[in-house]
Amino acid sequence: MANAEASVGIVEAQKAAFEAPFTFRSGAVLPRFELVYETYGTLNADKSNAILVCHALSGHHHVAGHYAGDPKSVGWWDNMIGPGKPVDTNKFFVIGLNNLGGCHGSTGPSSLNPQSGKPYGADFPVVTVDDWVESQALLADRLGIRQFAAIIGGSLGGMQALQWALAYPERVRHVLAIATAPHLTAENIAFNDVARNAILTDPDFHGGNFYEHNVVPKRGLRLARMLGHITYLSDNAMADKFGRSLRAGKLGYTYDIEFEIESYLRYQGDKFANLFDANTYLLMTKALDYFDPARAFDGDLDRAFAAARADFLVVSFTSDWRFAPDRSREIVQALLHNRLNASYAEITSTHGHDSFLMRHAHYHDVMRAYMDRIAAELAGEGPA
Amino acid sequence: MANAEASVGIVEAQKAAFEAPFTFRSGAVLPRFELVYETYGTLNADKSNAILVCHALSGHHHVAGHYAGDPKSVGWWDNMIGPGKPVDTNKFFVIGLNNLGGCHGSTGPSSLNPQSGKPYGADFPVVTVDDWVESQALLADRLGIRQFAAIIGGSLGGMQALQWALAYPERVRHVLAIATAPHLTAENIAFNDVARNAILTDPDFHGGNFYEHNVVPKRGLRLARMLGHITYLSDNAMADKFGRSLRAGKLGYTYDIEFEIESYLRYQGDKFANLFDANTYLLMTKALDYFDPARAFDGDLDRAFAAARADFLVVSFTSDWRFAPDRSREIVQALLHNRLNASYAEITSTHGHDSFLMRHAHYHDVMRAYMDRIAAELAGEGPA
Repeated sequence: MANAEASVGIVEAQKAAFEAPFTFRSGAVLPRFELVYETYGTLNADKSNAILVCHALSGHHHVAGHYAGDPKSVGWWDNMIGPGKPVDTNKFFVIGLNNLGGCHGSTGPSSLNPQSGKPYGADFPVVTVDDWVESQALLADRLGIRQFAAIIGGSLGGMQALQWALAYPERVRHVLAIATAPHLTAENIAFNDVARNAILTDPDFHGGNFYEHNVVPKRGLRLARMLGHITYLSDNAMADKFGRSLRAGKLGYTYDIEFEIESYLRYQGDKFANLFDANTYLLMTKALDYFDPARAFDGDLDRAFAAARADFLVVSFTSDWRFAPDRSREIVQALLHNRLNASYAEITSTHGHDSFLMRHAHYHDVMRAYMDRIAAELAGEGPA
Repeated sequence: MANAEASVGIVEAQKAAFEAPFTFRSGAVLPRFELVYETYGTLNADKSNAILVCHALSGHHHVAGHYAGDPKSVGWWDNMIGPGKPVDTNKFFVIGLNNLGGCHGSTGPSSLNPQSGKPYGADFPVVTVDDWVESQALLADRLGIRQFAAIIGGSLGGMQALQWALAYPERVRHVLAIATAPHLTAENIAFNDVARNAILTDPDFHGGNFYEHNVVPKRGLRLARMLGHITYLSDNAMADKFGRSLRAGKLGYTYDIEFEIESYLRYQGDKFANLFDANTYLLMTKALDYFDPARAFDGDLDRAFAAARADFLVVSFTSDWRFAPDRSREIVQALLHNRLNASYAEITSTHGHDSFLMRHAHYHDVMRAYMDRIAAELAGEGPA
């Protein structure tokens, strides 16, 4: 906590094109693809200080800093990453990317399919966490990074960080898995399926090929996002923030907005529906549903983690009912049963799943302490 | 537990027409209305053994028994009500009705508006729990029932039972309020608003006047019901029942049904969308949102219950996160602060909010014991 925190300042997105065919876990193949990414800090001489930040459902490559001429375009994890921040860009070279299938510049459903000359739409392959890790490894190769000092992710991003440790045990020294789970529960899947059905049954979805109809399934996306927001917050957080406050101070006896919580949700839904790609939303929820490294080991998570070599920091938040602390403890148990170095922090927070994105003193102290340890390793011993 | 449990057998619905204008809490007026109801058991000579059963969101008047020639048409609370059952029709005269605004025979949005000759649709007034109690009181008058031995309801039905004790303290001796709350939380309202928006934004809703377009907003109703089902169950109940079981035994990498939980939810959604009226669904969720007897007393629930004279049985279920035990305890606190006779049972159950509809030994024992006490009062002392 010695250095004053600062922004990484003006940043610029870059693009990497991969011209070889990419085969997905499903068997589907993309002839080529591009990944958009940003980097902060400086890669050291032996390329041992690289950090990969994996994003969650609606995230992207713009993790920290802002774009030239647009000071409000602040990255989604700017409170965590920058000079003097818990993930200190004076010490680390940090990479954020937009995942394959995304809608922020990487090849995704809205990209042109070179074979048809039209957007992929429904023809874009279903993506899994495994596929993302494969594509991220190709990006690491391109950047000359043999081994990451750490891979960090929250929620769906945490699943990617875990998968790195399983798929490429020699390529990651530390995994920071935040507000995540070894797999979704039936209830989690159920919420995702309602969100998906909202999109799939929107008449403007056109089976995923809405681009060529010049419409967007906003109704469905809006509902999906409204529902999502409920699950990102906690009952208490919503009670504290909105309670039963009436927008007009009295009941209106109509279906217009009456309670402040309705105003908030509809606003969030509308905003998202104007920005996000419906097919990408579907893909992200499927990747969440599918992630389950224990499935290949008859449900035995201990055996799933037998391949891992990294050290782990696992963080959960008390009010997170979407990825509850119990789910993080399952991960920690499996790590300990494999005699891996695992640190676990359960942060007291009222802000639900969204806590992982928020500035919270105890949480940031835990992250900073762990990252400082990685920095000390780098300074003292070099890479493993 | 002496008598063997039996069904009330073949039942028949009746209808009561009220020809005087009915003014809603909103100020809106219906020129006339009808309520459909059923009765089980025999009203005693001094009319002191009447029980009113209030229904929840998707309930109706067909509470027990079955219709002639249709043995599968069993009432929704048949496990609770019948000869020898906890609510024993050998002792009590039980009334079930379809609430005003419903879609099972009582006047509602799909009924013909005599002024326009078309279904009410969007012109049907928004209904509150208060309005229902007023209309139920008119039905009680019609049946010559001055005072109910008990009013029983779960969930939204429990809100009606509570409101009876506040609006007509002299007309109800016992209130059985099950799996209910003194008001919805912001999170509860949020879920309702997502469900409402699913219906309101379905192109087939036509602003509530879909009847004249010969369509039904099935997409919206289906989503609303899918979401509802998630909140009626518990995370554990869904995990026990469905877990991560795959319907085809392997991943399909499509948006078709893959997990068993998806199959269950979509089936429930489809079934409901073919049966239930979308406008009634909207009305029911609004009634839930609005119920808040403390609002008129600056949020002070103690003062709200100062008018009550009844004795109370309050029942909650440990795994019910929609109407959690804490919410029942708030009711009990307010009752005790008013020196009212209040019994409270917190039932250990893994089945979430739906527990109140299920056959559960401890729960049914509690209900039976309380009802036996009411029966003993009747036998020993007559009505209060």
